[in-house]
Amino acid sequence: MESDLSRLKIVLAEITDLYNVAGLLGWDQQTCMPPGGAEQRGYQLSTLKTLAHVRFTSLEVGQLLDAAEPMLDTLDPSSDDACLIRVTRRRYEKRIKVPPTLVSEMAQASAAAHQAWEKARLDSDFWQFLPHLEKIVDLKRRYSNFFAPFEHAYDPLLDDYEPGMKTSEVKAIFNVLRPQQVALLREIMHKTEPEDAFLHLNYDPQKQWDFGVEVISRFGYDWKRGRQDRSTHPFTESLGRGDVRITTRIYPDFLSSALFSTMHEAGHAIYEQGVDSSLARSPLDGGASLALHESQSRMWENLIGRSLPFWQHFYPDLQEVFPEQLAKVSLERFYWGINKVKPSLIRVEADEATYNLHIMLRLEIEIGLIEGTIEVKDLPEIWNEKMHEYLDIVPPDDAKGVLQDIHWSSGLLGYFSTYALGNLIAAQVWERVNEDLPGLESQIRSGDFSELLGWLQEKIHRHGAKFEPQDLVQRVTGSWITPEPYLNYLRTKYGTIYGL
Amino acid sequence: MESDLSRLKIVLAEITDLYNVAGLLGWDQQTCMPPGGAEQRGYQLSTLKTLAHVRFTSLEVGQLLDAAEPMLDTLDPSSDDACLIRVTRRRYEKRIKVPPTLVSEMAQASAAAHQAWEKARLDSDFWQFLPHLEKIVDLKRRYSNFFAPFEHAYDPLLDDYEPGMKTSEVKAIFNVLRPQQVALLREIMHKTEPEDAFLHLNYDPQKQWDFGVEVISRFGYDWKRGRQDRSTHPFTESLGRGDVRITTRIYPDFLSSALFSTMHEAGHAIYEQGVDSSLARSPLDGGASLALHESQSRMWENLIGRSLPFWQHFYPDLQEVFPEQLAKVSLERFYWGINKVKPSLIRVEADEATYNLHIMLRLEIEIGLIEGTIEVKDLPEIWNEKMHEYLDIVPPDDAKGVLQDIHWSSGLLGYFSTYALGNLIAAQVWERVNEDLPGLESQIRSGDFSELLGWLQEKIHRHGAKFEPQDLVQRVTGSWITPEPYLNYLRTKYGTIYGL
Repeated sequence: MESDLSRLKIVLAEITDLYNVAGLLGWDQQTCMPPGGAEQRGYQLSTLKTLAHVRFTSLEVGQLLDAAEPMLDTLDPSSDDACLIRVTRRRYEKRIKVPPTLVSEMAQASAAAHQAWEKARLDSDFWQFLPHLEKIVDLKRRYSNFFAPFEHAYDPLLDDYEPGMKTSEVKAIFNVLRPQQVALLREIMHKTEPEDAFLHLNYDPQKQWDFGVEVISRFGYDWKRGRQDRSTHPFTESLGRGDVRITTRIYPDFLSSALFSTMHEAGHAIYEQGVDSSLARSPLDGGASLALHESQSRMWENLIGRSLPFWQHFYPDLQEVFPEQLAKVSLERFYWGINKVKPSLIRVEADEATYNLHIMLRLEIEIGLIEGTIEVKDLPEIWNEKMHEYLDIVPPDDAKGVLQDIHWSSGLLGYFSTYALGNLIAAQVWERVNEDLPGLESQIRSGDFSELLGWLQEKIHRHGAKFEPQDLVQRVTGSWITPEPYLNYLRTKYGTIYGL
Repeated sequence: MESDLSRLKIVLAEITDLYNVAGLLGWDQQTCMPPGGAEQRGYQLSTLKTLAHVRFTSLEVGQLLDAAEPMLDTLDPSSDDACLIRVTRRRYEKRIKVPPTLVSEMAQASAAAHQAWEKARLDSDFWQFLPHLEKIVDLKRRYSNFFAPFEHAYDPLLDDYEPGMKTSEVKAIFNVLRPQQVALLREIMHKTEPEDAFLHLNYDPQKQWDFGVEVISRFGYDWKRGRQDRSTHPFTESLGRGDVRITTRIYPDFLSSALFSTMHEAGHAIYEQGVDSSLARSPLDGGASLALHESQSRMWENLIGRSLPFWQHFYPDLQEVFPEQLAKVSLERFYWGINKVKPSLIRVEADEATYNLHIMLRLEIEIGLIEGTIEVKDLPEIWNEKMHEYLDIVPPDDAKGVLQDIHWSSGLLGYFSTYALGNLIAAQVWERVNEDLPGLESQIRSGDFSELLGWLQEKIHRHGAKFEPQDLVQRVTGSWITPEPYLNYLRTKYGTIYGL
């Protein structure tokens, strides 16, 4: 059994290498690659991913798993080896259930849909995208059916991103969240809106870059195991824990974008850099789920980066870097400005108080599409109705409405809720870490994040993908994912800022 | 047969993808990768190369070749398909003759030798490197033996870089070359040495970069299918003809380095960018051999970049960029300065008149080691003797002598002569292109390289690796590789500069 496990580890290490290399190809594509490389890059990625998939779903991996599994009877269930066997078995069973024909049909449909979506969004014309999205939804329903029986047809899609999570759990959480977030937003909207014009002045890009670098270095981003570049959309790419790269986007006339996206991506990267070295070159070398990942990025971006203690330390530095723009803006006005709440059309620009509502709208639509209770052709109307209901605004066109996100065109259904779940987990973990580290707020006020980072590494990061998300959240906070801490956080924060 | 060929092409395309991806990993390692990525990068490269090797030497490729080969009876021998079958068969037979145990022994020995060499060079102590080099030589001799019978034991090593080339051919060429180059050098050394202090002033790195970019853009380097970065050692990396990247190295106090290395690497890249698109994703998508490659890089760097007509066009621009340093230096003095001949210890810093002598010394040593007529322990002495004989200088220590090059420590025996052969081919092609394009010199004088580039693409570049080097040189120039054109070129050029 032990030698089978050793052999399994070798095979998985090679497969992990291939996926990490595919990650480098993707990073390079968005940061370095000249346009002439696009066509061959598509082939290279497809060759690598196919090789990795074929290798992972091979009879050999199945046999090695069969042979190693009896070890689970004697291994500590939370040991690296036990988790490796369990997680690998789970992914293996999921992958081999889907026929390769469906996988390749999905790849082709996504490629075509992505192209159609780009054009449709440009023309703001949903009807160009309609047949493609119908095809994607049809394929996703067929995909889901390979995992029957299930509690809900949406479960297998959600499980791709949040292993073990059920649609019913997410629905229950969102059913509590939705009315309270809507109510809070209505309250806020009756108050005077803070001024934030000073965020939209001219800010030298190099100085923005340098300030962001200073902040995330203080957070603990390890530059010896990473680097930062510019790209159209900020992202984090881990090529393994020794090389976790981030990108940022800088607007010369909007300070918040680079500032908070840099902290956000550093949050993702610090998670990946903190995975224990014993998990290197294995499927466990990475975050536990997208929601856990988002909990870390959002924590650094929002719970820390948009907090008053943080700016009590960093604002004087920022004022020194941008005296013309900020010398006359008080700390309080700055803090209000970066936390201004305003319902907006675009998810990625949403503030903390409205973001989750964008997500709930999408989740409801996705569940309806998979259940068959919503038809693709009705999406623009449903989208706009829900926007009106939740956020009290209606998109003037489809480009700013149902066509805004890339996800569906790439075949990513089941993904959106992880963003909202990440917000909830962040607040839940934040409550807990503040109990464990009573000096945390004053440490942040003095720009010291070392104890926080140590706590996060010990409780979350080092475990990599060993545990399912609900299990990990339970281990860290003592309860499953729950909306209360996030609602408390929002009420306290905006209660103070808006005087509710 | 045709469907077997189609299948063969698909398999080869995937293998080519893997090698190109390995190329990207190497490029990234030298330009972007943070130090923490080094360990996993080693694994990633090894996983990719092993996969590519196993796939290429598979029974399947052998069977597809067997099935496709009868097509050679009816195909035009210079058609893409015929060349693909021929080249693939050649490489396949060469690879499968070597047992995997030897391949992995070589990989391990090289890794250890490379590490030992770095330390030995630092300490300038050959004896640290001795046992490692003995091991490498032993492995190379065993490698060679798998290809017996052969005319010369060195042939299989040379053939790895110059397919089809024989040791006897290279010896014959160098036997003509050596005495004449030595004699020419002696003559030059009796003349007054031109002044070149102005090349060693302070030159702003960004301006050096920009000037280099301007020059190679005029040469025809296609930026839509490439990019330039800085690295410790300049190199070219082709990820396929759509993405051919170059790097350069800039010294703030020496103008020649970036200037000529940029032209040199652009020469390599322009070759790769010019391969016909029908050869994409095949083993034929690349240069015909290292010597052919070097002929192109050296042509742009030396026959063009160090010529008077070139500077008649570009020198006023350069003076404008660096008025403080060059305003008072006449075109003639500049031209003399960049062509100053001075025997030096280090190969990579050698001028056109001495470079080949560095190569011949290395080739003689390599042949002796493989024949068994030279022992590794005698290398420092032999090295210094030959340096004295050919260049009339003796290294003060091993770091500046026998330990200077990385090649042997990496297991690259058989490689060096390609540099000298490249010089010869460049001169040979240059004679021919000047016959075909009588207006070339005046085109260069006006900074126009378009007709030259068209000629090179038509005669050399587009063919990729379809033909063996001697065959290609014969097709282009009407004769095999011969030293006369290069000797004529040197005599004419230095005759004028030094008034011989």
